[in-house]
Amino acid sequence: MAKKSFPLPKVYGLLETGPVVLVTTTDKGRPNIMAMSWHMMMDFEPPTVGCVISNRNYTFDILKVSRECVINIPTVELAEKVVGCGNTSGRKIDKFKVFGLTQSPASYIKAPLIDECYANLECKVVDGKMVVKYNLFILEVLKAWINPARKDPQTIHHRGRGSFMVAGETIKLSSKMK
Amino acid sequence: MAKKSFPLPKVYGLLETGPVVLVTTTDKGRPNIMAMSWHMMMDFEPPTVGCVISNRNYTFDILKVSRECVINIPTVELAEKVVGCGNTSGRKIDKFKVFGLTQSPASYIKAPLIDECYANLECKVVDGKMVVKYNLFILEVLKAWINPARKDPQTIHHRGRGSFMVAGETIKLSSKMK
Repeated sequence: MAKKSFPLPKVYGLLETGPVVLVTTTDKGRPNIMAMSWHMMMDFEPPTVGCVISNRNYTFDILKVSRECVINIPTVELAEKVVGCGNTSGRKIDKFKVFGLTQSPASYIKAPLIDECYANLECKVVDGKMVVKYNLFILEVLKAWINPARKDPQTIHHRGRGSFMVAGETIKLSSKMK
Repeated sequence: MAKKSFPLPKVYGLLETGPVVLVTTTDKGRPNIMAMSWHMMMDFEPPTVGCVISNRNYTFDILKVSRECVINIPTVELAEKVVGCGNTSGRKIDKFKVFGLTQSPASYIKAPLIDECYANLECKVVDGKMVVKYNLFILEVLKAWINPARKDPQTIHHRGRGSFMVAGETIKLSSKMK
């Protein structure tokens, strides 16, 4: 899928709505995927993202060492695969293979992009000081990609226990908020 | 509006979808409201929420001192009022008055609940050590309230610059994820 570069100052608009994302990492060449909902924007420029990842997760162990990951944003068509990634551990299976997802190389980091996701954010860990106490990683987005053909992407938003809200219509109000 | 107590272990399901929330605080008896999108769950129990609040905001100054706030969750009917709260500063106006919102007393803290919001989370700041560097407050939810009459609340989710995604349908998948 031909992705286009997406302007970094606009990245907040992709994450601020709170979608479930797929985090990809690589453990000495072995790729992994994790479903994640506990993330937030922390700054506009450079786009900075906070995320909390359970220390029981394989991704936690990889990220502590590799200090880089991709935040991939899936849409509702991928919901079954997202749940599959959430139900399994990359310590035991190759999730790209099992869930039929396609790797693309990133530009700045070794972790792969998930081709099927409509947006991909290449990130590095810029502050790991809160990892021990809160499992909190602070990431900077180095490069963002988007599928320009994908209009009105219907992201999914976790309500808990397998219940997901699917993004509905977009309304426009006269806001001065960035 | 008669609100019911909402179980603390279920609070994550209210915030994990990433809705715009209204944060209420009180500055020596003077109430204020702020619209906020930069928040995430950090722990299930006790429910712990991280949020980033610009240090240019009145709420930032109040929260640093009072160390307590309410996270109120609005639905789409309140969208114009939410944007109104985002476009103005409580340093200059009384937002409850200007936007016609109703205060209810909280149980554990002095900041008021917004009656019109379908859910309200009474919070205290449990860690302010990252406020200087990241404007990051870590909150613990002490008490949660819900409007039991409100089925399928359509939350709003900020896409940036006055564009909001309205919560769509809910789908159920066989997830083992909490």
